[in-house]
Order: sequence, then C-alpha cells, then structure tokens
Amino acid sequence: MRIFVINPNSSVHVTDHVRETLEKIKRPDTELFVTCPEHGPISIESAYDEALAAYHILPLVQKANDEGYDAVILACFSDPGLDAAKEISKIPVIGIEESTLHMAAMLGHKFSIMTGMRRRIPTRDCHCRERGVMDFYASSPALEMSVVEMDADAAKAKARIIEKARVAVEKDGAEVIILGCAGLAGYSEDIEKELGVVVLDPSSVALKVAEAMVDLGLHHSKAGRFSYPPKKEIK
Amino acid sequence: MRIFVINPNSSVHVTDHVRETLEKIKRPDTELFVTCPEHGPISIESAYDEALAAYHILPLVQKANDEGYDAVILACFSDPGLDAAKEISKIPVIGIEESTLHMAAMLGHKFSIMTGMRRRIPTRDCHCRERGVMDFYASSPALEMSVVEMDADAAKAKARIIEKARVAVEKDGAEVIILGCAGLAGYSEDIEKELGVVVLDPSSVALKVAEAMVDLGLHHSKAGRFSYPPKKEIK
Amino acid sequence: MRIFVINPNSSVHVTDHVRETLEKIKRPDTELFVTCPEHGPISIESAYDEALAAYHILPLVQKANDEGYDAVILACFSDPGLDAAKEISKIPVIGIEESTLHMAAMLGHKFSIMTGMRRRIPTRDCHCRERGVMDFYASSPALEMSVVEMDADAAKAKARIIEKARVAVEKDGAEVIILGCAGLAGYSEDIEKELGVVVLDPSSVALKVAEAMVDLGLHHSKAGRFSYPPKKEIK
Amino acid sequence: MRIFVINPNSSVHVTDHVRETLEKIKRPDTELFVTCPEHGPISIESAYDEALAAYHILPLVQKANDEGYDAVILACFSDPGLDAAKEISKIPVIGIEESTLHMAAMLGHKFSIMTGMRRRIPTRDCHCRERGVMDFYASSPALEMSVVEMDADAAKAKARIIEKARVAVEKDGAEVIILGCAGLAGYSEDIEKELGVVVLDPSSVALKVAEAMVDLGLHHSKAGRFSYPPKKEIK
Amino acid sequence: MRIFVINPNSSVHVTDHVRETLEKIKRPDTELFVTCPEHGPISIESAYDEALAAYHILPLVQKANDEGYDAVILACFSDPGLDAAKEISKIPVIGIEESTLHMAAMLGHKFSIMTGMRRRIPTRDCHCRERGVMDFYASSPALEMSVVEMDADAAKAKARIIEKARVAVEKDGAEVIILGCAGLAGYSEDIEKELGVVVLDPSSVALKVAEAMVDLGLHHSKAGRFSYPPKKEIK
Amino acid sequence: MRIFVINPNSSVHVTDHVRETLEKIKRPDTELFVTCPEHGPISIESAYDEALAAYHILPLVQKANDEGYDAVILACFSDPGLDAAKEISKIPVIGIEESTLHMAAMLGHKFSIMTGMRRRIPTRDCHCRERGVMDFYASSPALEMSVVEMDADAAKAKARIIEKARVAVEKDGAEVIILGCAGLAGYSEDIEKELGVVVLDPSSVALKVAEAMVDLGLHHSKAGRFSYPPKKEIK
Repeated sequence: MRIFVINPNSSVHVTDHVRETLEKIKRPDTELFVTCPEHGPISIESAYDEALAAYHILPLVQKANDEGYDAVILACFSDPGLDAAKEISKIPVIGIEESTLHMAAMLGHKFSIMTGMRRRIPTRDCHCRERGVMDFYASSPALEMSVVEMDADAAKAKARIIEKARVAVEKDGAEVIILGCAGLAGYSEDIEKELGVVVLDPSSVALKVAEAMVDLGLHHSKAGRFSYPPKKEIK
Repeated sequence: MRIFVINPNSSVHVTDHVRETLEKIKRPDTELFVTCPEHGPISIESAYDEALAAYHILPLVQKANDEGYDAVILACFSDPGLDAAKEISKIPVIGIEESTLHMAAMLGHKFSIMTGMRRRIPTRDCHCRERGVMDFYASSPALEMSVVEMDADAAKAKARIIEKARVAVEKDGAEVIILGCAGLAGYSEDIEKELGVVVLDPSSVALKVAEAMVDLGLHHSKAGRFSYPPKKEIK
Repeated sequence: MRIFVINPNSSVHVTDHVRETLEKIKRPDTELFVTCPEHGPISIESAYDEALAAYHILPLVQKANDEGYDAVILACFSDPGLDAAKEISKIPVIGIEESTLHMAAMLGHKFSIMTGMRRRIPTRDCHCRERGVMDFYASSPALEMSVVEMDADAAKAKARIIEKARVAVEKDGAEVIILGCAGLAGYSEDIEKELGVVVLDPSSVALKVAEAMVDLGLHHSKAGRFSYPPKKEIK
Repeated sequence: MRIFVINPNSSVHVTDHVRETLEKIKRPDTELFVTCPEHGPISIESAYDEALAAYHILPLVQKANDEGYDAVILACFSDPGLDAAKEISKIPVIGIEESTLHMAAMLGHKFSIMTGMRRRIPTRDCHCRERGVMDFYASSPALEMSVVEMDADAAKAKARIIEKARVAVEKDGAEVIILGCAGLAGYSEDIEKELGVVVLDPSSVALKVAEAMVDLGLHHSKAGRFSYPPKKEIK
Repeated sequence: MRIFVINPNSSVHVTDHVRETLEKIKRPDTELFVTCPEHGPISIESAYDEALAAYHILPLVQKANDEGYDAVILACFSDPGLDAAKEISKIPVIGIEESTLHMAAMLGHKFSIMTGMRRRIPTRDCHCRERGVMDFYASSPALEMSVVEMDADAAKAKARIIEKARVAVEKDGAEVIILGCAGLAGYSEDIEKELGVVVLDPSSVALKVAEAMVDLGLHHSKAGRFSYPPKKEIK
Repeated sequence: MRIFVINPNSSVHVTDHVRETLEKIKRPDTELFVTCPEHGPISIESAYDEALAAYHILPLVQKANDEGYDAVILACFSDPGLDAAKEISKIPVIGIEESTLHMAAMLGHKFSIMTGMRRRIPTRDCHCRERGVMDFYASSPALEMSVVEMDADAAKAKARIIEKARVAVEKDGAEVIILGCAGLAGYSEDIEKELGVVVLDPSSVALKVAEAMVDLGLHHSKAGRFSYPPKKEIK
C-alpha cells in the first residue's frame, strides 16, 4: 500500500526526521511518501499556527487522493485541518493525535500527554474533549521547551520528558505517556525503559493504524460529518 | 466605541445584509466597520469552508487591532478561526456562535439551532461540546436549504424555520431558537411572534455582547489558551 | 432604560456599595434603582441564608414588573431565588452569578471563583454544575473571610484574593478570576493589574448583560422552565 | 424511632393522604408525626411554589430537631429547601426525591419520572443533574394534570400514568417508574402489576431510607456543604 | 425477613467477621445466613480475583432464591458478579459497593473510598463511573496494605485509614469516608469520632438497604438489563 | 507474528466461522490459532453468560502467554473477562468490542451498534460508558434475534440489520454501523453497499488492531489498572 504522510509544518528538517522514523517501522509492502507544505509556519505551537498550517495542507490531501494513495497521515500532534481533510478525501486521513488518543485508551487507565509549552495545556484539554476521550486523560505536563529547542537538544528534551512523566505517573495516575510532538519521534523506547510505563510515539502509532485501516478497506463515513463539501465559488 | 465586524465568507451581498441588520440595533455611540475577506468561499457550509475562511480572516483581525478598534465580531455561525483570532488579538474577538450559545443558556432550559443542511448537524453537536454548553443543547434541525437558497428565498426560509422550530419546541423541549446562519439576520422578531419562544439572531446578540465587553474594558485572558502565538518563521 | 437592582441580603451598607459601583459604569441613558429587602439575613453564606433571601426578594421582583422596569438584577453571587424570579417575571431577571459564569466562559479556558468561606466551596461546585458550565470551572479558592470581615477590611480582602488567585492561576490553570461576592464590587481593576489575568466583578458584568438584553428586547422564554407559575391558593 | 414528616405544601388533605400511606408501611417501632406548614402554597408546581414552601418548612425542621426526633422527611417530590434543611439539622433530613432517585438507580438501568405538568419537565432534568444521577434518567413524561386534578380523580390519574409510563418503557428504555408526586402515594402496586416494571412511591421509599439511616446512626456530614449556617443578624 | 449474605471471597475468617458485624446491627426480626463460596480466591484485589469470585458466587445466589430468602447481599466492596446475580435472581441482590455509593451520595457533597492497594485506585474510578456516581467521587486513597495485612493488624489499618482519610478531607474535599473493604467492617464509629466526618461501613449500609427493600417489596426490574438470562446449553 | 484468538463462547460452529473470516484477512506473515473454551455457554447474551465465559477463558489467556504468542483476541462483542485477561497477560489482549468502538470513533461522528436482543441494549449503553466512548454512541438497535437464530438464518439476519441500521442512520444520526455480534463476521461489505455508511465487523477490526499493536511492540501498561494480580491462595 502507498501512504502519503504530511508533516503539517514547513520544516524540512522535521519532515526528514518523521520520514526516518516511519521508514524504520513500516511494513515491507508499505510505500511512504513523506512531505510538508512549502508555505506555513516552521512549527505548530498555537491555534494561529494551526490555522495557517491547515490551509496549506489541504492541497496536499487533495494531491494524495488524485495520485491514488491509499491513506493520508497528518504528522503533527494537533491534527491541524483534520476535519476539513477528511471531508475532501475519499481515502482515510489519519491524524496522529486522534489515532494515538484512541490507542492509548486501550492500553491503560489514563494517559498523560507531554507537551512543549505551558500555553498549550488548554489545547490538549480542548482536543481531548473534542475527540471524546476525556475519561482517559490524566494530565498534560509542559516541558517548557519550544519545538525548536527540543529539536536542537534531544538529550535535554528526553531528560525533561522523563522528569515530567514521572510526576504524571506518580501524581496524576498516568499509565501511558504520549509524546505529544512529532519532533520527538523515535525516542519512545528509551523513555519506556526508564519509566516502566507504556510510551507512545504518535507518528508510529498513526502509521500502524493507517496500515490497519487500509487492510480493512476502511474510509471515513461520507454519510454526515465528513461528507464532501458542497461545491461553490471560492474567491 | 468602534467595532470591526468580519463576515468570514467572501459574499458582499451577505456582508451588506449583516451591515444593515447591525446598523439598526447598534448604540448611537457605536461605530461599525463591516467587511469580508477578499478571498475564500462565498458561504461556509463545511469544515473545508471553515478552514479556508479562517485563513483569510486572520489578517483582518490583525488590521482591526492595528487600526485601534475596540472589538472584533466574527459574523458566521461556525466562528471559523475564533481561537486563532483571539490569540493574535489584544482587543476582544466575539464569535456570533459562542456569544449566542451563552446568551441562549441564560434565557431558557434548552435551545435548538436552526441549521442549513443535514450534513452540518454533527458540526453543531461538536461546537456545543467544544464550547462546553451541551447541557443546554436540545437539537439542531436542518432546514435542508443552502445559504444561497436561504438568501434567494427568505420567505421560504422563514416558513421552513417555523415548521422545523415548532417540532424542536414540541418534541425536543427547545425553549430558545437560535438562527444558526448569519444570512438570516433580521427575521427573528417575526418568527418569535409565530412560535411564542425566544428567537435569537446571532449577529445581533454578538454586537450587544461586544458593546458590553467594551464597556467593561474586557478582553480575552492572555494568560494561557489565548496568549500571543510564539514568534517564528512563516514560509 | 430602567433597571431594578436587588441586593438580596438586607444590608443597607452593601446595597450602597453596589449602587456606587454600578452608578459609575452604567450607560448614561440607563437609570438604576438599587434596593434590598427589608427582611432576611444581612449576608448570604449558606443555603439557609439563600432560602430566606429568596423568599424576601420575590415581592421586589414583582414590584419591578409592576412598575414598568426593563430588567431586574439579583446582586448576590449565589443568585438566590433566580428560577422563581424568572418564572414570575415578564422582564428579564439577571443573576450576577449566572451572567458572570457565561461571560467568563468566553474570556479564557477556565475560571476560578474567589469565595468567602471554605464551607461554600461545594456550593460553587453545585452551582457550576447546575448552570451547565463545569467545563470552564477550575477551582473555588476560599478566602476564609466572612462577608462582614471582607467589608470591614477591604485591603486585607484584596491581599488575600491576590494570594489565593495566584495559586489558582499557577496550579489550577485559571485564566479568569471571578470575585464571587457582591461585597467586593469595585476592586477588580487593581487585582487584574497585579495578576495579569482577567478579573470579573459580577455585579458589573450583570449590569452590562442586562443592558445588552434590554437593547435586544430579550426576556426569558416563557415556553417551559420559566413559564408563569400556576395560579393557586397560598395560605 | 420517631420520624417527623413534613408535607411541604399547606394542604391538609394531602398531608392526611401521606400520613395514611406511611402509617401502613412503617415499622411497628417507628412513630410518625406527619404535618404541613400553616402557610405557603397548597401544592408545589413551580420554582416559585418551591421557594415559598422552602421558607415555611425550615421552622418545622428546627422544631423536629428541638423535640428530639430521629429524622425528618420532606414529602414533596421537588425536595424544596432540602439543602437548607440539612444545614440547620443535626438529624438526617431525607428528601423523597433524592432518596427515590438513588433507590431507583439500584433497581434498573434507567428510570422515568411521572410528572404533573409539561412545564415541570425541565425541573426534573435539572434535579437529576443537580443530584448527580443523569446516567439513570430516561425521561419525564407529563401527565398534563395538576396536583389538584390528580387528587380529585385518582382513577383518571392512574390510567394516565399507565398510558404515559408504557411509552416511557417502550420508547425511552425506562425499567423503573417513579411516581413523581406525593399526592399519588399508595397507587404504586396497582400500576406495577399493569406494567411489569418496578414502580416507586417516593414517600414510601423515603420512610424506609429514613429508618435505615436511623438504624445506622447516620446523619449528614457537617464537614462542608451541610455544616451549620454561620450565626448572623436576620432582619 | 431472611437475608442471605455472601462473602464473595473464600476466607472463612472474613466471613465470620462479616457475620459478627451484621448480627449486631440487624433488626430483631431479620434472620441472617452468612456464607462464602467453597472455591475461589481468599481475598479480592484484582479484576482476576473478581472474575473467579463472580463465577463461584452465582450458585449461592441461585440457592438463596431456591430456599426462599428475601434478599441477597454480596459483601465484597467490588460487587463481583453483581449484574449476573441480579439477572438470575427474583429477590433483590444488594452489592455493598453499589448501595454504599448511593447512601454516601445523600450524606455529603463528595466521598472518598479507602482502598487497600494503589493498584486498585483505577478500579474505584471505573466502578464510580459504571455506577453513575462520578459527581460525588472525591478520591480513592490507597492504604498500601493487603486485605491479609489489614486483617492481621487492625490497629495499624485504623491508624493508616485515619491518616489517609484526613488528607482526603482536607485536600480532596471529602465529606464522607467509605471503608472500601469488607474486612474493615466494624471500625467506622471510632474513625468517625477521630475525623468528624461521616464514615460508612459498606456491609452495614447494605444490610439496612436490604431491609428497606424487603419492607418495600422491591426487587430489581426484570424488564430489561436484569431480565432473566435466556435459557441455553452450558457445556 | 502469532495471534491467539479466543471465541469466548463454547460453540465450535461459531469458532469455525470466526476462523474462516479472520484467515481471509490476516497478513501473510500472521499465524492464527482460533479456539474456544471447552466449557461455558454456547452463546453470550447476558451478564450471566459473560460471567461464566470470563471464568473459562482465563486459562486460555494464560496458555497463550505460556506458549509465546504475540497477542490475544477475545472474539465476543461483550469482551467478557477483558480486564482480568489484561491483568494476567504480558502480551496485549484485544477485545473486539473495545477495539471496534475506538476504530468507529475515528471514522464518523457517531456509531450505532446492532445487537441481538432488546434486553442487551442496556449492556451496550453500559459498555460504551465504561469504555469512555459515550460521545460517539448514537444507539443500539435490537434485531430481536438470538445468536442461534442469526446463525441459522444469515439472510434474515442481514435483512434485519439493514432495516434497523437504516433507521439508526436516518433517525439517530449514525454514520458508522457496528455489527455487535461475532456470529455475523463476514457480512459487513454487503451491508455497507446497501446503506452507504461504514460498517465494521468487530473481529476483523480487532485482528488488524492486534497486528498494529504487535508491530509497535505494544502491550498493556502494567503500571496500574492492568498490573499482575497479587499472588494468593485460590481455594
């Protein structure tokens, strides 16, 4: 199968990192095309960044449909533009946040989501509510590092995650830790060893959920929320 | 005070209609500037339309801030780009959906939201959940008319609303009816007489909430969810 | 417009304080009549106080209707007797708690309610649940001061609020602070400067919501929950 | 044990009916004193009636405490003044609504509450939410009969209940039917036979819950929500 | 009346303890038969233990029905097999957890459940959600003692409960403390004195709820969730 | 990878049907062992059946662990014994209900679950609440056919599903239909064509989720709810 992976920010560096991570775990018969939009913010850390990114990924989603891909993955933990992408797409669109939240819900009583900046904690609350998984949500500890900083100093990011995740486990009852940032793809195993809980890398989860959906011949229901948008004049 | 009203779709006709409605009910000392983005869909009936509109209204929100307005109103019932707009704005940004949902919650036990197409019912569900007002939400009857059709045949739209709203009142327990479409601004009084319940025109409600906020010197809290976006490279 | 403001406790001193606060912020064309019941508790700090106050304010609500006022404000943060008042009233009755909770919901991700005594924290929980705004409720820090103490030593009350509100912001994620006590009307600006979050004075918010409702010609829906009580023998 | 039963409305006729019903099912060693306030509405069908009744029952609750009773029952399905009564009381105060909702929750998946007038359906919704039992609440079918009418024509009331309850069972999934009106005490057995579901008479349930609480030496926790009201001047 | 009490674990020692506790508080006209299954785990501290115990208690529930008892009590705080037991039983089956959660909900704003091991905290969360009483649930402090340890050193268990319950009251807002372990039956009074809150012993509560149900002639509704299982081949 | 599939009922016929369905869709490198317990009910249509089945599948889960399988699937839509199975297992245990509910949540706004008998509708409600997915749950239409009848007359079952599912789509807003019965495995494609919505066969979904989990090296978190049961005497 052929899967079209969109890194919604415009950072080629992060895109390369996502590609490397996913290439390692894809099934032999899965072919990946990993890309990012030419325009838009180089990282996504606000609703403003999300709105810009959403706009720029939609043509890529269309392209994936036009070129006969089997599924699309949006590889940013805020799933910017996910609903719009599902509407215009015949093939399944898998958000790494959405798929990971549901996977986490099956693996433990509650999960915590590691997030970059304190200002994004409300976003995590909102997304868990919007996606209907509040019962599983323990907390969203902030690393107080920007995506750029995490990318620049992976060791520091990892140490910070372990410190914050330990608190989530001991105080908030987290049994599963979600690495809420595409830029951290690939470090989950090390962290899992340290903490003794399950650690999820969202991009990896999304890839496997995408493979599962394609195997099952599934797509989003076009009977309501995700039906095709009405045709109209766009100025 | 000076209020900057953005019709998020690109229809000059709808923009004019919103302007007329609001000019009639504004306070004498309120000055309105009503506009719409040059680009984007001419009506908003999908998450796809919302994503496009959100992108195009953000520069207008910035402009309202730069030009010293006191508040911004987003005059489309789906409040496209509301969170992003609040983030980049120092002055309050009032979504007509958000402000109307809260007003409705004070006026009756439950409200129903008249919506255009059946495909948008899930959107109403989602927005009521996201905005934390599910306890007040009775139903979202679909008129099965597009925005363009409603605009073209106001009499038919009004008749359809009365028919559907009657069912909402009798079966779903609605005590307040929300006209979930900016294009219908101005008809609430007639419908109210017919049905004996409270009918809300969202644009009108938003204007009065905006005036109240400005009088109170209020703005969105910049301490968390709506703090300014981090500065970064935007390609 | 003419607005009838009821301080539900029987303290003339607090009534005067409310009057002064509201006179400063009312619109030039708004006329206020601020009063309190002759009988009942001099402050409201229990469900028992609320039950007594509710009984004594209802004739005042009737009087406001009989004398042609445009709206009634109940200026006690527990909104005692609000549902009964809405039932017997043709004109809108605005509770300062109800209107402030909804205003707060639009201004930040979560709010905390400063309350007097620890014993009233469950009341705040209950009211947020009853009013359907639990999703926005962060916490209810107790000042451990009675209304009388707050009134006697405003400086101490203010200092205590700042101390407790700071914890609410840092630990509970509050982005908006509600001064849950009519007696504190007028200090919100100072506190806001200190804390960098939005601070709401409920009486002020209620006045502006009342002005907005009257401008819009709104009243409570008489189609269900707030319909007029059946006529009957009252012994 | 000695139980003080308050019919919160001022109807001697209903009070007698409650007394007869409870005398039949009390334990031999239970002594009942059944009374009603001298003042207040003769039936309770609105929040307004509730507010008046709440005021008048509080001295009776005090009297029950002063005279050494073991428990108080409030025998009106809206439990008017329950929180205030619990605050001022050392002995347990059992609301017939509250105790019946919890009993019903143990006996079936969902319950429906037979109510008098359509206008009270929102009240039932509100009370189930306030009392934290929404998960068990199926519906609240209205008999469209006033308390006086039910009292005047018991056969008609019974027939109407059976008709409406049947719909609740078949359409709303009700497995337990609550007779949400003290005036109907005593008919549950007949209705149960007809419908094949469990039918609860709230006054009877409350009496048995009261006996259980007294046996267990229980009272309301005075550590928070129901702690004694602060002493203060009452004008 | 005759009540059949099943201690779901296979410990004769715990069974004796339950019998002693209940014999002291039963009504004079109540006759108790207290037993435990011959097979199954000697204590219940996991879903695995629950699954084994559920299997072994079902024949005892059947036996209680066959021998004409009036009610069954399952005396383990996790209520193992409760739904299955209700299905096969004509007489009411009272789980000590279920009945105590509902009793606690009437006695204070929120309750905390003392539990043995940290690993069972999620179980308490789950059960409160399943039983629809989340609004009343404050916390579930772990004693970090196994059932066997509690049984072996009652003084230590009591001291630990007091220490942990104090935190629940002061930090989590608990107003009622539930002793979430049948093995602790009988100590509630001492603990209550120490803490000044209401302390519930679940077995005792269940006995009184059972007596109340039998007095009222109640049983579980057989109209849906608890209707008799379809007859079928069991290999 | 090697996956151990347990049909929790004791019907060899249903077991064979599950095997055939899964063999067709497994990945080439996946090896399946499909079995059922020797003892227990031949179909699962009550909590009683679930309790019996849960007991008998636990040794099989242990066996799968002992023999080095990579994952276990419980192929009955009620997931009997799932929590206990997760506790005793080192390898992931996938319930077909749990995994399908989460998959459905990603594919449409709401799902409906086709169920056999009316008496099981409350079970579906309960499981959706327990599994934290109530926001996605539209309804649970009953086919009014036993598992045996469905098995005996597949054409009738399919026709009945289409009839009932159509109502779910049109009235309840279902966008995804779940075939809530392992016995119906294999018919989803036909039904999907007829209805134009997404139809999920739970066993198939579970197999693909299992493959995804194994690929990702995932297992249930052993840090809390699913940690190994304490060792103890089992009589």
